[in-house]
Amino acid sequence: MLRLYVSLMVFCSLYLSGVCGISFASAEDVCLGCHEKKTPGIVNHWKESAHFKKQVGCADCHGSDIEAGHKREAVVDAAKCGTCHKKTFDEHSLSRHSKGLRTGQGCTRNMAATDEQKKSCSFCHAPGSTKPFDETECAMFLAQSKDMQAHGCSSCHRVEDRCDTCHTKHGTDLSLARMPGTCGTCHMGPDHAQYEMWDASSHGVIFRARGEKDGPSCVTCHMNRGSHNVSRGIATGLPEALPEMKKQERDYMVSICSGCHTSGFSARNLAGADNIEQQSRKIVEEARVLVEELYREDLLFPPPSERPSHPLFGKKFVIGPHMLYENLSLSESLFFRMKQFYYMNTVKGAFHQNPDYTHWYGNAPLKLALSELKSEAASLRRARNLKDRLDNLLLAPESPRDDTGDVRKALRELRERMLRGAISGKEYDDLKKKALDEKGL
Amino acid sequence: MLRLYVSLMVFCSLYLSGVCGISFASAEDVCLGCHEKKTPGIVNHWKESAHFKKQVGCADCHGSDIEAGHKREAVVDAAKCGTCHKKTFDEHSLSRHSKGLRTGQGCTRNMAATDEQKKSCSFCHAPGSTKPFDETECAMFLAQSKDMQAHGCSSCHRVEDRCDTCHTKHGTDLSLARMPGTCGTCHMGPDHAQYEMWDASSHGVIFRARGEKDGPSCVTCHMNRGSHNVSRGIATGLPEALPEMKKQERDYMVSICSGCHTSGFSARNLAGADNIEQQSRKIVEEARVLVEELYREDLLFPPPSERPSHPLFGKKFVIGPHMLYENLSLSESLFFRMKQFYYMNTVKGAFHQNPDYTHWYGNAPLKLALSELKSEAASLRRARNLKDRLDNLLLAPESPRDDTGDVRKALRELRERMLRGAISGKEYDDLKKKALDEKGL
Amino acid sequence: MLRLYVSLMVFCSLYLSGVCGISFASAEDVCLGCHEKKTPGIVNHWKESAHFKKQVGCADCHGSDIEAGHKREAVVDAAKCGTCHKKTFDEHSLSRHSKGLRTGQGCTRNMAATDEQKKSCSFCHAPGSTKPFDETECAMFLAQSKDMQAHGCSSCHRVEDRCDTCHTKHGTDLSLARMPGTCGTCHMGPDHAQYEMWDASSHGVIFRARGEKDGPSCVTCHMNRGSHNVSRGIATGLPEALPEMKKQERDYMVSICSGCHTSGFSARNLAGADNIEQQSRKIVEEARVLVEELYREDLLFPPPSERPSHPLFGKKFVIGPHMLYENLSLSESLFFRMKQFYYMNTVKGAFHQNPDYTHWYGNAPLKLALSELKSEAASLRRARNLKDRLDNLLLAPESPRDDTGDVRKALRELRERMLRGAISGKEYDDLKKKALDEKGL
Repeated sequence: MLRLYVSLMVFCSLYLSGVCGISFASAEDVCLGCHEKKTPGIVNHWKESAHFKKQVGCADCHGSDIEAGHKREAVVDAAKCGTCHKKTFDEHSLSRHSKGLRTGQGCTRNMAATDEQKKSCSFCHAPGSTKPFDETECAMFLAQSKDMQAHGCSSCHRVEDRCDTCHTKHGTDLSLARMPGTCGTCHMGPDHAQYEMWDASSHGVIFRARGEKDGPSCVTCHMNRGSHNVSRGIATGLPEALPEMKKQERDYMVSICSGCHTSGFSARNLAGADNIEQQSRKIVEEARVLVEELYREDLLFPPPSERPSHPLFGKKFVIGPHMLYENLSLSESLFFRMKQFYYMNTVKGAFHQNPDYTHWYGNAPLKLALSELKSEAASLRRARNLKDRLDNLLLAPESPRDDTGDVRKALRELRERMLRGAISGKEYDDLKKKALDEKGL
Repeated sequence: MLRLYVSLMVFCSLYLSGVCGISFASAEDVCLGCHEKKTPGIVNHWKESAHFKKQVGCADCHGSDIEAGHKREAVVDAAKCGTCHKKTFDEHSLSRHSKGLRTGQGCTRNMAATDEQKKSCSFCHAPGSTKPFDETECAMFLAQSKDMQAHGCSSCHRVEDRCDTCHTKHGTDLSLARMPGTCGTCHMGPDHAQYEMWDASSHGVIFRARGEKDGPSCVTCHMNRGSHNVSRGIATGLPEALPEMKKQERDYMVSICSGCHTSGFSARNLAGADNIEQQSRKIVEEARVLVEELYREDLLFPPPSERPSHPLFGKKFVIGPHMLYENLSLSESLFFRMKQFYYMNTVKGAFHQNPDYTHWYGNAPLKLALSELKSEAASLRRARNLKDRLDNLLLAPESPRDDTGDVRKALRELRERMLRGAISGKEYDDLKKKALDEKGL
Repeated sequence: MLRLYVSLMVFCSLYLSGVCGISFASAEDVCLGCHEKKTPGIVNHWKESAHFKKQVGCADCHGSDIEAGHKREAVVDAAKCGTCHKKTFDEHSLSRHSKGLRTGQGCTRNMAATDEQKKSCSFCHAPGSTKPFDETECAMFLAQSKDMQAHGCSSCHRVEDRCDTCHTKHGTDLSLARMPGTCGTCHMGPDHAQYEMWDASSHGVIFRARGEKDGPSCVTCHMNRGSHNVSRGIATGLPEALPEMKKQERDYMVSICSGCHTSGFSARNLAGADNIEQQSRKIVEEARVLVEELYREDLLFPPPSERPSHPLFGKKFVIGPHMLYENLSLSESLFFRMKQFYYMNTVKGAFHQNPDYTHWYGNAPLKLALSELKSEAASLRRARNLKDRLDNLLLAPESPRDDTGDVRKALRELRERMLRGAISGKEYDDLKKKALDEKGL
């Protein structure tokens, strides 16, 4: 029965072949012979897929160079998918999901890609230099071990040029790709917990109870009508200098909310979240200014000059998009958490209608951390003040810089001998100079 | 078919009309004309609701003043719902859910409500004063921006006088209101993670596998038989001076547990959680005493006197229910986390049968934070001690209070001249006084 | 109908009785008379169970001593279950789940168990000693209140000798025991969030969408074919000195992965996680070395000598498996979090294919905490250095150890009198000694 159905599908879709250079028959001959035994799961997923029905075979995606395939050089990137799925690829290319591809940002994460891309080194590097431009946003990535890059970074950032980050590799089950949990495999956790925020919000609760009809999921708002430009409707982060662009995206999002809410309610709600974003950014900025002051006062321990080199800026002090989380002072560590975790929870919590993320995971720890940072700054400055006072005290004439007290004691004895008249002023000066010279003071 | 059913319902419920002042026909005329086009979702929810079946129409809840409705003054508060749902409203009024309504606590969160409520300012304010009484538990709220109040506080605390916090606005699907996730939209997160605790406990697992029949959900224990007094059965937090009241609530809860467990097992389990509550409170108290000591020793930086004014207590030191989380010293920040996050996880984790919340989210960080607070206190005191020693040293006769050492040097030289006989004791005293006067010492 | 079915089952399974010493009839007579009324839930679960169908009755598990049962001495431990379920019990006994049983480790958690076990005190104690051997990994447990031991520790660690930790008490619904959430009641939270990691990974998402067929759950990998040796296939933590054993377990796990992935992909993925484990361990080791240095420099406040006694090591400094989380210095508190929380998130996140746990819950806070620990160490050392300099200054001949400056002033005056010739060197020495003696210096 299934075979009959499959045969029918194959037959019906014959006239479709050729569109994407299909070589269905040869693929069956060459690959399936082994892979039906060695990786039956993969083969079964493919046989249940829309690709199979349309006679899209192994070689259509992986190419016909079997040797390359076995050396893991036949990886299917987004551009390959785009040869058939052009509209989808174009939408993806406009979104932040593909940021690395378009701008060269994050290119090091995609080094294994096509020759074409390897040629485009000038996206990131000046000719003859191995050091990427500053705009390449991957300092955090470059500072990692290869293993952490693979397991911790690229598992998510591969979305830039790999469609199978969200879609399963050989199946084409759209219901799986549309599941909020699929977005959640990356959009979760301390840095951006959109999945958890939505899941615990009224939106998520209604979705779980009644499905997409009544409860909006990730794709309802961010991939409306199946668009793969997931950045549509997100006004936050767009340049303030382009208010028209911001307005356009906001209006788009309000139009989606209006499926269930009045546009007035939706616009007010999003405007409130805008305000929260600005207030939270101001708190982060206050922290940044303080950390920069501490840097100038030489109160970051270890100072940047004594840390391992930053992959982009060497021994320079870095605070901003390229900031690392390794080898920081406590002050910078607190700032990092504020900017990367608590700010994100506050802002994204507000936009995803989750009061607990907005407030208790966001605003409260953001302000607590600012308090802790100020407390640390005050503590560092008090300690520095004490040290300065002690240095000044010991630097007074009778108190050369000497922690052990030996030289100081010797000099005092000298002075007492001089005062008592046991040695002359000249002798005293000579002996004092000699004692200090011996200690290199 | 649906229309037939609806017609039948409308017909059958005709004799019910009048009970709540129903004006079904006019509402259809006046509101639906526009709203069926502008907000079809809302209208559809209403048409599927029990309200529709009983001919409860727009004006019954929102009033007939259309102008007011369009200015968002036709908000439906709990009292309005209570005109029909009297028993439910009365139960709600007895519970902590409506605390703000009954006591005036949190009234600022409900300022937009009825004129009746606005008249009741004396709940919170002395005549002629805009400053609320101390018992109004909203200092944290008052210290927030309007936007954070709306997105972060009132999204949950509106439960005080808004039934649609848990029930959907225009539908009446009880299965949705009874979902644990509905409670979870507020009862989650760092401050009280009851949803997560339950969800990951055996109770939650069995509920997910087999439903309410075998696995208790929030409403099984806290809204038994549909009661809206959600505080029934919660003995924790009741005054120790009223042991009878505590016993009564505990017995009620044990009677609910006894649906599945022996009453002996249930009582022992809850008594164990009582003990954990007391032990955890003692840890928080130890921390509080230490922070108060630090305050008296002037070791909180910034001191309360240098912070923005507390909305209730101005520049006074506040540690307790009205404590804010802004502009704290590190010591107070640690205390805040202990009291608001780790204590809550420990205690509520124990009562919700979640060992990981009890221990790893609760007890462990509670004790770690106490260690860190003590460590900070010791560090502050060591630094203060160093400073005092240095101050004493410089305050000794030959060491006037002078960080730069210049005056100190001058005075030493004076004394040496006096000792050598270059100047008299009287001259020395005069010159010393003059030098000190010049520096204002 | 149900009664007919039950009767039939009872009839059909008559020939099975005797295998496990079944006393079905008597149990029904003695226990059910009361318990059908007092605890109908329990009785119903049993009546729906495979035990009931096979005529396994109350006394078969609980024994026939009714008095003991009512005194809670008829607890059914794993050994009891093992009399019928021998293979399962043997597998459990080989796993880390039963570690406490096999080695005596954690025996204090099972003190209420059988007389047989009580006799085996020598597992943990030298004859005549109440102090457990060092290898018993329960210092954290011993330091807890009885209530926290019950609610926080034993709720999970009872898995050592209680099958009903995962299986419901009187029912035998395997689908419930196989639910990931059942494992998750313990394998969650800050110390080992395997449930959350899996749940949010692609594995979890596919499982939730399509069930076990396509998405692996806990039991797919860790209880393959129903084996109760949950430690099978886990190479991490096995002794480096036994590479064969490690290889054997790894090969077993790769064979399970190969149901869906190529064995090459699986092996590479797990090898990457191995590397991450080693890199993370190195970070924890760096922290440990630093804390040990601080201990030797007497920079842990409070020092171990001033803390309440460690249950195994008294006043000794403890850093490692027996480390407590109570009464620590800030440095040790940071180390505790690194080893117990962030290391675990990093490593277990990598093995459970969750990039956010690997990186943002793991690697990032692990490195941030190391930064904070180094920052604290630097701060402690700077403060110590200041104190030493001040001590040295005051310890110089004319500056006896005296914070108030009184003695110092007196000694200075004495020296000045001596220098001026008002008193002799001998008189000076005598008066100086007297002044110091009076102050006990």
